[in-house]
Amino acid sequence: MDRIIIKGDIVFTPTKDEFQVYKDSYLVSEEGKIIGIFDELEQRYQDYPINDYSGKIIIPGFVDLHLHAPQYANMGLGMDKELLPWLNTYTFPEEAKYSDTNYAMEVYSELVKDLWRNGTTSAVIFSSIHKGSTELLMDLFVRSKIRVYVGKVNMDRNSSKELTEDTYQSLKDTEDIILRYKDNSSLVKTIITPRFVPTCTDELMDGLGQLALKYDVPVQSHLCENVSEVEWVKELHPNLPNYSSVYNKYNLFGQTKTIMAHSIYVTDEELELMSENQVFAAHCVNSNFNLSSGIMPVRKFLNKGIPVGLGSDISGGHSLSIPRAIVSAIQGSKMIWLDSDMELQPLTCSEAFYLGTKGGGSFFGKVGSFEEGYEMDCLIVDDSNISNISRFTLEERIEKFLYLGDDRNILERYIQGKIVAEPK
Amino acid sequence: MDRIIIKGDIVFTPTKDEFQVYKDSYLVSEEGKIIGIFDELEQRYQDYPINDYSGKIIIPGFVDLHLHAPQYANMGLGMDKELLPWLNTYTFPEEAKYSDTNYAMEVYSELVKDLWRNGTTSAVIFSSIHKGSTELLMDLFVRSKIRVYVGKVNMDRNSSKELTEDTYQSLKDTEDIILRYKDNSSLVKTIITPRFVPTCTDELMDGLGQLALKYDVPVQSHLCENVSEVEWVKELHPNLPNYSSVYNKYNLFGQTKTIMAHSIYVTDEELELMSENQVFAAHCVNSNFNLSSGIMPVRKFLNKGIPVGLGSDISGGHSLSIPRAIVSAIQGSKMIWLDSDMELQPLTCSEAFYLGTKGGGSFFGKVGSFEEGYEMDCLIVDDSNISNISRFTLEERIEKFLYLGDDRNILERYIQGKIVAEPK
Repeated sequence: MDRIIIKGDIVFTPTKDEFQVYKDSYLVSEEGKIIGIFDELEQRYQDYPINDYSGKIIIPGFVDLHLHAPQYANMGLGMDKELLPWLNTYTFPEEAKYSDTNYAMEVYSELVKDLWRNGTTSAVIFSSIHKGSTELLMDLFVRSKIRVYVGKVNMDRNSSKELTEDTYQSLKDTEDIILRYKDNSSLVKTIITPRFVPTCTDELMDGLGQLALKYDVPVQSHLCENVSEVEWVKELHPNLPNYSSVYNKYNLFGQTKTIMAHSIYVTDEELELMSENQVFAAHCVNSNFNLSSGIMPVRKFLNKGIPVGLGSDISGGHSLSIPRAIVSAIQGSKMIWLDSDMELQPLTCSEAFYLGTKGGGSFFGKVGSFEEGYEMDCLIVDDSNISNISRFTLEERIEKFLYLGDDRNILERYIQGKIVAEPK
Repeated sequence: MDRIIIKGDIVFTPTKDEFQVYKDSYLVSEEGKIIGIFDELEQRYQDYPINDYSGKIIIPGFVDLHLHAPQYANMGLGMDKELLPWLNTYTFPEEAKYSDTNYAMEVYSELVKDLWRNGTTSAVIFSSIHKGSTELLMDLFVRSKIRVYVGKVNMDRNSSKELTEDTYQSLKDTEDIILRYKDNSSLVKTIITPRFVPTCTDELMDGLGQLALKYDVPVQSHLCENVSEVEWVKELHPNLPNYSSVYNKYNLFGQTKTIMAHSIYVTDEELELMSENQVFAAHCVNSNFNLSSGIMPVRKFLNKGIPVGLGSDISGGHSLSIPRAIVSAIQGSKMIWLDSDMELQPLTCSEAFYLGTKGGGSFFGKVGSFEEGYEMDCLIVDDSNISNISRFTLEERIEKFLYLGDDRNILERYIQGKIVAEPK
């Protein structure tokens, strides 16, 4: 049986309200799942192998609910533009290059390494429209043993010539990928990925919704990122009450589990629907800053019981680091607090950490926490260059790591109870 | 004569409107001052020593206009609090420890190293109230050859017992330090540093203003950071029209060159006075996010011709990195653009870079640019892990470095034309 015990200073957030901390304790797992946390090792675990990380922090691996793989090479580029001009000038031309799997191999290999480096152990990813490059990316993740959902993007209108698909072919390629990866890996899965309403005909959305239901495959898309985009959707679908209702009409809004990125300008009716359908919001605060989109009022979503996780959203976002997304989410929520006349309380550190671990992780199932039965995905953090360990509490050390640390502080990544080596 | 030529891809901002770029060129300096930039080396420079950094980017060193040295150990701590509770819970107790010069030596040595690591070649710094620790910090900078203004903090009311000075002693210590460092170093200078109006009696401010005029020493303080703080100042000085006018009354507002940190909630009258008196604003966006203070409308300041630079403001801010401050300043300005109904244009990348180099640098004199006669302070940036050099323009490479890079990309730091070694 596959057993491992790791020892160290354990920190996680079973609820968002506070950090649970276990100084100098043992995290026991079997078959890649958490058994429990113990301050002394019981007799029955005496013969389990122990990896001793005394003095280091052990936290759940980070979860990224939204990123665009084919935009990786564009990170930090064109940040002086807003969403729609940015898409046309930088993003679409770059994505068109992924018809070439050699180019895809070159860039995607770097992306996978960079996710690993940043301690992202689970991610939900947009690929491009290209079947070949999408499968290549999924195969890279299978090989590197990182937990992901990857979606081939669907778009058959309002796009550049190179990126406009034939509707039938778009659906066929999507179904092919679903079938190929159905039982292929416990870590790498397919997700249905209409780019966003403006680039998908009704026929395409209808077909995708049917595929989602037929194979019970989850869905991801974009929602209410930008004022002009919301207006555009209104023009395209004048008979539907709002943006969400377009997805909802086509079974792409929680009929199978669903993530909507951004969700900044959702109306109260849309919030209600997200809550009812338990649609996840991927909060991508750095992207929303960079593209002048606005700030999602996270507190409203939490108050409504809508599941929320964080997304790096490269290359609207400029960093794959989930700790950076955590800090920016806190910062953004403080600006919302000021704007709301101090009604919408800012995110606390434990709340934002929860969003970047268990909040996003719950999209995958039991991921992002150290409760019994959870996937044993964790990071070993060496914070000795940040905190004089004896001086700070464990809560203070985790806060300092989130604000000051970077990939250099991550010593090891475990997924399903196994150390993941740096991808080649 | 002290001469050096460095070769590489040169980028700087003589004006904020755009980057000036010189691919594969020579930056020539003598006696620590820039002579010029040349694409081919003229005969008369043939015998100058050349440091060849071909393929690397050469930019002016970063300038940090506002940071608190004795808060260095607190970076990333207590970020769930607002300004005034944060000061009382975290900041003041920590600052009180600097009565012990051993403790100061331990922490300040790390701070100096960290500034060096981040490529900050010029900084304007608050020390604590303690003369001994302040002098120790200044001596560390003299030894490490980094360009700084350091100010012993003055505060004689509304502070914790340990940090409340006797007014006479506060003035005497300040004058002692001014005299001791008057002609001590071309790099390390004194700056007069009333903490902020609430912690300074009229008598203290009056004395400090007199010292500033007597020795022609510059001034730094805090201004309009937070709504409660502004109200507090109004209560303390009911007969003066605004916060700025208190400093102005005591010759602490541009009578000698002056930096005011934050300046978020300044009125139009105060903006007018800052412009008239050419008072510098230190824009500390990460601190303002972290302490829920708000966002300074930088564009208004630039439109008024008020000089602006960037401040890390540790430990309200959580990072010494000026590139991070640059990115956050752009992000903040985009939120202001939205809030102002798209009236106040966001900062462009070149504008924010300007603020973090020449904008702040102009407080020191000819610092932060590569124009003739400027101090030869520069960084050599190796961006090979970020940008495939052949694919991107130099403007794109600098943007990518600012957004994605970190201290690992900084290969060398020059100050006054000499490579600065890592401080011990």
